[in-house]
This record gives sequence, C-alpha cells and structure tokens, in this order.
Amino acid sequence: MTSQLDIEAINAMVAELYPGTGNRCVELGTAHAVAAVEVTPTDIRPGGFISGPTQFAIADCALWFLSFVGLGRIEPMALTSELSIRFLRPAVGERLLCRATLEAVSRRSVVGTAHVWVDGQPGKFTAAAQGTYAVPLPR
Amino acid sequence: MTSQLDIEAINAMVAELYPGTGNRCVELGTAHAVAAVEVTPTDIRPGGFISGPTQFAIADCALWFLSFVGLGRIEPMALTSELSIRFLRPAVGERLLCRATLEAVSRRSVVGTAHVWVDGQPGKFTAAAQGTYAVPLPR
Amino acid sequence: MTSQLDIEAINAMVAELYPGTGNRCVELGTAHAVAAVEVTPTDIRPGGFISGPTQFAIADCALWFLSFVGLGRIEPMALTSELSIRFLRPAVGERLLCRATLEAVSRRSVVGTAHVWVDGQPGKFTAAAQGTYAVPLPR
Amino acid sequence: MTSQLDIEAINAMVAELYPGTGNRCVELGTAHAVAAVEVTPTDIRPGGFISGPTQFAIADCALWFLSFVGLGRIEPMALTSELSIRFLRPAVGERLLCRATLEAVSRRSVVGTAHVWVDGQPGKFTAAAQGTYAVPLPR
Repeated sequence: MTSQLDIEAINAMVAELYPGTGNRCVELGTAHAVAAVEVTPTDIRPGGFISGPTQFAIADCALWFLSFVGLGRIEPMALTSELSIRFLRPAVGERLLCRATLEAVSRRSVVGTAHVWVDGQPGKFTAAAQGTYAVPLPR
Repeated sequence: MTSQLDIEAINAMVAELYPGTGNRCVELGTAHAVAAVEVTPTDIRPGGFISGPTQFAIADCALWFLSFVGLGRIEPMALTSELSIRFLRPAVGERLLCRATLEAVSRRSVVGTAHVWVDGQPGKFTAAAQGTYAVPLPR
Repeated sequence: MTSQLDIEAINAMVAELYPGTGNRCVELGTAHAVAAVEVTPTDIRPGGFISGPTQFAIADCALWFLSFVGLGRIEPMALTSELSIRFLRPAVGERLLCRATLEAVSRRSVVGTAHVWVDGQPGKFTAAAQGTYAVPLPR
Repeated sequence: MTSQLDIEAINAMVAELYPGTGNRCVELGTAHAVAAVEVTPTDIRPGGFISGPTQFAIADCALWFLSFVGLGRIEPMALTSELSIRFLRPAVGERLLCRATLEAVSRRSVVGTAHVWVDGQPGKFTAAAQGTYAVPLPR
C-alpha cells in the first residue's frame, strides 16, 4: 500500500478512504506536514470558539500526514497511538491550520509536535500538541 | 450561570449552547460522569473503525460534565486546558460511551481520568485519557 | 530473559540491574502493581514538597512493574515510550507510593494509569499519570 | 520574590532553594531557556542508558526556567501542572541538555515544548516533551 508521496496523492487517499473528514494536506516537507480544514457550524462552541475536538482532529490529521513523511510513503494504516494537546488561546475563524514537525522515526513509531492556528493569524497558536503514530508491524 | 446539577439540566444546556454536538450526559455521580454519542458515518475511518477524534470528543465531553460534578454546578465556561489520550484497541460499533472519574478539584482546575468504550462491550476500553479543565477565575 | 513473576524476583532484578534507584515493588496483582520509595533530602523542593521528578520516577517505576504484570514475565527491556503526569496537590511526607492499573496489553505495548500518594494518606492522590511501555519486538 | 532575570540569578536561586538538584540554567532567550545536568551513576539504567526520570527532570527544569522567561521574573513558586514526555532514542553520555521553547503565557499558566539531548549530539533528541506551569494566583 505504498504510493508516491505528494499532496495530491495524499488528498486522493483521504477523500477515498475517509470521506467523512474535510481535513486536507496543504504542504509537505522533508520533516513537516501542514493540514487544513474549513470550519463548519458544528465545530463551534459557546462563545463562537472553534471546539477543542475540531482542533484535536486537525492536529491528529497533520501528524498522520507527518507519519507518511517520516516513513517515506503513504501509509493509511499508521494509527494514532497517543496524542496530548494543550489549548493556548481562543480560536476564532473560518479555516484552521496545523503544522506537524518530525521528532523521530523508528521501525515501530513516528513522533511529532504539532501547532494549530487560525488562517491569517500565523504564530498565534491556539493549540500545541505532541503525539505518536504506530507503524504497522510486519506479520 | 449556575444551575441545578442534573442530567436533564446539563443536556438542555448542551443542546442550547452547543447544538453542533450529539454528545449527551447519561449518568452523573458524586465523583464521575458518563457521556454517550451515536456514531455517524462521518465518524468512521478506513477499516470501519470509529475515528480517534470522535473518541477524543466524547472523552472531552465526559470530562466537561465531570468538571460540573467537581464544581457542584453547571459551568459552561469550564474549558479544556489539556488532554492526553491513548488508543487501546479498534472501536467498532454504533454508540460510544465515556466514563470520566474525578482525580482532583482546586480553585483553578478539575482533573479527571476517562475511559471510552463501545456500547455493549463494557470493560473493553478503546481509549484511556486524562485531562485538566480550567475553572473560570474571578475577575 | 523470563523469570517467575513475584515481588522478590522483581526487586532482586531492580537491585542488580538498576542499583541507582530506591524504588521497589511492594504489591502485585492480576491487573495492578504498587511501587514505593523512601524520600531523600535530594527529593525535596522549595516549601518542603516532594519534587515532581521524584513523583514521575515512582509512577514510571510502577508502570514498569505493571508491564511485567501485563506481559506475565519480568521484562527489564520494556521501556517507557511516553508518560503524561498531572500534579494534583502538594506532596509532603517520607515515603511515596504509586499504584499502576492495567488499561491494555498488545504485542507491542502495555498501557496503564497510575496514582501517586504519600504513605498514610491513601486516596489523597498527589499525582495522576498515564503512560505506555514499549514491549521489545522480536528481531 | 521577583529578581532580575539572568542566568546567574536563576542558578543562585536554584542552589539556595533546591540544593538537591544538579540541574542548572545555561542559556536564556526571549522565548526559550536551556538547562543542563551532569549525569551521575544513579541516573543510569540497564544497558548504560540515562534513565527516563533523569530526562524528565531536566525537561521539567528547563520548563521551569522557561516559565521565568514567560513571566519576566524569577518565580520559584511556578509549579508544574502537567507534563507529557516521549522517549525517542537511547540516551548515552555524561551531560544532558534540554531546550524549552515558549508556546503561550496567560495570567494563569505558561506552556512550553522541550527537547532533550546528550551533549555533543545536538539535533539527535532523546526525548520530546510538552507541559504547563501554573502561575501563582493572587490571593
């Protein structure tokens, strides 16, 4: 289940295998990935703030894309092992972005750090996260 | 913004202030709260598994309800400060539950531990989490 | 590197392989383990409180012992993959205990929840933690 | 308990209030702090690796120094609220360093990300962490 690692291939896989999500890959580097999502009314909490779970979801997605970077291939069965997130300030806006940065790759896992922000407010992070993706083991 | 602490009052508040969520309170104790949600097609990941963010969302919600238990009042502005989650096994089913247990309450925060499972499979936890809710400070 | 799983065997292994630690196993169950340590002057922070790292260390140790429970054998090379800890109240006393409870075991990892307290004050937890131990993979 | 924010003042405070630790501040910036410690025999685990708790301790310390940066003053009573750590690769060496980077400051807390490495091996991080320091509230 290996494919060329580019943004279009990732987003085609996401659209096919995970149609329920609006999260998409918008940038890929040698040690990072950026995910983006359009905020919908169901993502809004009291006060007009983008919900915590919506921010978790984009962080989880960016780290998933990052695991492809770490492994050098699209690996849909890389699964979140654990993720911790801290909410830093209110998130208000219509588009949410998350950049995940590679910390380490081993044969069993990929670890990354993620920063979430609202489009147009770079550097004003609304959440910071760190997590581990489990790499499928050979049978 | 204080009200009587019972399941109906909590769910009325959730439905009014946070209409985008299907998460509901189904049980309240002196040191725990249980939240439940009907799984929808958008919650499903490749393989038929309930997504990580859906599990995070129910854990976050159960801990929110738990913060009401800890504070002795409905406090919609209790906000997630941080939450870490570990995914333990595949989650397959139509209804997801989460029980949050109180660890500590201070004037600034409520800390709890949460366990997520699929309805009908009690004790077979699909995720375990721990997190902190920030209590609004007096001005 | 398998041995009979009992308290004496664990503590003999700890004393031999990890002489620098005063942490010891004091209780083992089918799904839990308890570790204890005598607090030393170097563990004390300003105000007379047992330091965070000392509490982390006993939680880490209890989860290590728990990984033996989960695996059914003493496995010194089970290594902490990740651990998150929340400090709940000041810890004052001369002996620190931690009970780790099993959440899940797979062929790659053991996950547990841990509660730390000062001897003589059961139920008044000074820290709550959750973490993952990586099981050595076959070559 | 405010003082000028420089490395010497921080290390004098640490030596006076927390004599049990060998952790010291070695670098301060506008949004980061670096801590260092000489590894002792009691820090070594089976296999010759620097123990997880030793790495946690230096991360906790760097984040403490970072909280001073975030607050603009030495604040010994800034206390760890929560910290999560991931171990990335074996740590072998005689001196351990940790750089903590500022994520956010509010009137109630300081959040940072931390990277741990062995002296002489910059960029080869042995652990990555994220955590929250609680700022003392006015009475």
